[in-house]
Amino acid sequence: MQFITHTSTVEGAIQRIDFVLGADASGALWRPDGGTEPVALLLVALGGGQHVDTPGVAARAHRFAEHGYAVAALNNPGQGGRPQTDADISAIAAIRNPAATLQQRGTAIENYNAVVAPRALPEWAALLDVLAARYPEIAHKPIGFYGVSLGAVIGLHLLAAEPRITAARLGLIGGEHLLQAAQRIRVPVEFVMQWDDELISRESSLRLFDALGSTEKSLHASPGGHTDVPVHERDSALRFFDRTLRDAGAS
Amino acid sequence: MQFITHTSTVEGAIQRIDFVLGADASGALWRPDGGTEPVALLLVALGGGQHVDTPGVAARAHRFAEHGYAVAALNNPGQGGRPQTDADISAIAAIRNPAATLQQRGTAIENYNAVVAPRALPEWAALLDVLAARYPEIAHKPIGFYGVSLGAVIGLHLLAAEPRITAARLGLIGGEHLLQAAQRIRVPVEFVMQWDDELISRESSLRLFDALGSTEKSLHASPGGHTDVPVHERDSALRFFDRTLRDAGAS
Repeated sequence: MQFITHTSTVEGAIQRIDFVLGADASGALWRPDGGTEPVALLLVALGGGQHVDTPGVAARAHRFAEHGYAVAALNNPGQGGRPQTDADISAIAAIRNPAATLQQRGTAIENYNAVVAPRALPEWAALLDVLAARYPEIAHKPIGFYGVSLGAVIGLHLLAAEPRITAARLGLIGGEHLLQAAQRIRVPVEFVMQWDDELISRESSLRLFDALGSTEKSLHASPGGHTDVPVHERDSALRFFDRTLRDAGAS
Repeated sequence: MQFITHTSTVEGAIQRIDFVLGADASGALWRPDGGTEPVALLLVALGGGQHVDTPGVAARAHRFAEHGYAVAALNNPGQGGRPQTDADISAIAAIRNPAATLQQRGTAIENYNAVVAPRALPEWAALLDVLAARYPEIAHKPIGFYGVSLGAVIGLHLLAAEPRITAARLGLIGGEHLLQAAQRIRVPVEFVMQWDDELISRESSLRLFDALGSTEKSLHASPGGHTDVPVHERDSALRFFDRTLRDAGAS
């Protein structure tokens, strides 16, 4: 695969590099500017319907970079402005169908996520390889993974297959079909759930946390729906990576 | 009630005052030394069998004080060197009975906690009054509560009755008889549970978290048994109080 740098911009103390990997896997890399070596690399997989330029996504990446991390994010196949197949278009229409019940919507999302995640996996593996070749000072640092919702579905499969990733913040997912991947995970995990998630049943989230094979894992549950994760959980993610990657890299 | 200062010692930048409240309610107050006003007051209720000088208890209080908090802890009635009734002695013997099953031990603890907590409540109310009279520069700051296990049973009842307390870190408890008190709580709560707690069933902890009436509440679950709360949860407690008390006091 190729790694085509489109633009390199500097925002404050952060350098941002927009790239396309292979045919159309667009994404962005944020890193501390000025030759500062990052303390670790965070791979950020997006939720359904997000784009690397969705304000919440870009702001999160920027904040991680301000704290010394390099951050690499990929738009998901068929999303974030990437070409869509007919199957993508009809699956997304099913998710957005205004006549669908919440339960039908949840099922449509779960089904589509299960299709998108396997398409994303080789792109993440390729991204790690390209980063290792092109930015060894980044890729040879400890590597963490951040993804909730669709991003966590990708994460569960990626973590089970990719030994270079040594810590993960996941959440906002459930489902019987994910339990097997969860059981194979061994790295520290912080798992967020929303206590009143309208798309994921409480029982399903708790079962997924229970299934995680990691000896170090934390469940953080907060009241509210799928998109109501409280602000203080953002800070918790940073502390989780500080504890599992920064301190690990320093020792 | 009287407040008798036994000793005032300085440990590093922390002043410690040992006191007896009323007839025999022994406890300790830690505060930043040198006239520094604390950012908030933390009330620390102890777990079953603990003493204010149990290393974990004193170290936690000391660390809170190093971060700018005043910390007041009370030995529980019948514990921590305080006089015991015949009922105390036989209840503690039932808890320590080497022939008891884990389930019997859990029931014995739950029963005893339900008796001890109501005895502790008036002491905590009196302590707040005495602190307000004697150390207004401490008692008029925001007030938080920290207690797990028996300390959390006390906390649930105290919070439901005591509007001066505006944030609480609780956990390691469950039980139908506590749900009603939990429903009355309105302040921010961080609730810790151990996923494999041998004394409290998982379902029982989750139901208690669910019952908490607070709009701002977080559940933190970690693998392991009743006494295996991971070190990083200690730091989380400090950040919780920083968020709910320090920042609240500053604004």
